[in-house]
Amino acid sequence: MAVSDVVSATTSKYDIGEQMCPYRLVLEHVTSRWGVLVLIELMERPYRFSELRRAIGRVSEKMLTQTLQTLERDGLIHRDAQPVIPPRVDYSLTDLGREAAEQVRGLALWTKDRMGDVQKARVAYDARKSGS
Amino acid sequence: MAVSDVVSATTSKYDIGEQMCPYRLVLEHVTSRWGVLVLIELMERPYRFSELRRAIGRVSEKMLTQTLQTLERDGLIHRDAQPVIPPRVDYSLTDLGREAAEQVRGLALWTKDRMGDVQKARVAYDARKSGS
Repeated sequence: MAVSDVVSATTSKYDIGEQMCPYRLVLEHVTSRWGVLVLIELMERPYRFSELRRAIGRVSEKMLTQTLQTLERDGLIHRDAQPVIPPRVDYSLTDLGREAAEQVRGLALWTKDRMGDVQKARVAYDARKSGS
Repeated sequence: MAVSDVVSATTSKYDIGEQMCPYRLVLEHVTSRWGVLVLIELMERPYRFSELRRAIGRVSEKMLTQTLQTLERDGLIHRDAQPVIPPRVDYSLTDLGREAAEQVRGLALWTKDRMGDVQKARVAYDARKSGS
């Protein structure tokens, strides 16, 4: 019996409609452009909105607000609005968010460390393709 | 001196145009919907295209081809075309790809394990929002 027969005889492990979709969205939130940076930044300490925006750089107020709301709704960050004048809002990681941040940081650091190898592979690939 | 002054006085650590973009794309490739599944699946063993497609499920031929090309160009998977009839093409992880797959699997497993907590957080968030 060929390996392909064995594989085709079983139900797909990743039947997207059934199993993958619920957590696919969370994966997208934590690996989004700004999601990654917010999670990593908040590992250091809590931040106010304006501080966080400066620390991350080049993120619009609207995009940062959306990112924070999404991560707050997922239970990854805590939003603490202080009843003072002027209004003060602090953002921090929840325990769940710290776990997510550690995973995401691992992946981001790996990507950064291995970027040289990826660039070399791309050059070699493009050379093969243009030569063939 | 306020913390915010210190932060604003330094250049952003994540000046996107300068530092983030090169590896941002790799991060997107490995965390893409099909990229995650291809990497995790290939941790087991090499796969032929048609086997891989069945194993992953619900991915179009075009999308899987694109995903494999992208990961091959990044140096994460190896494409081995055998000179036989009918043509046979095997895909396997490179050493670099295995590293990426381990990181991605960690994140995917975390997301899956914690999905219940995320769902609870979302219900609580939505209740707060509709009540306020």
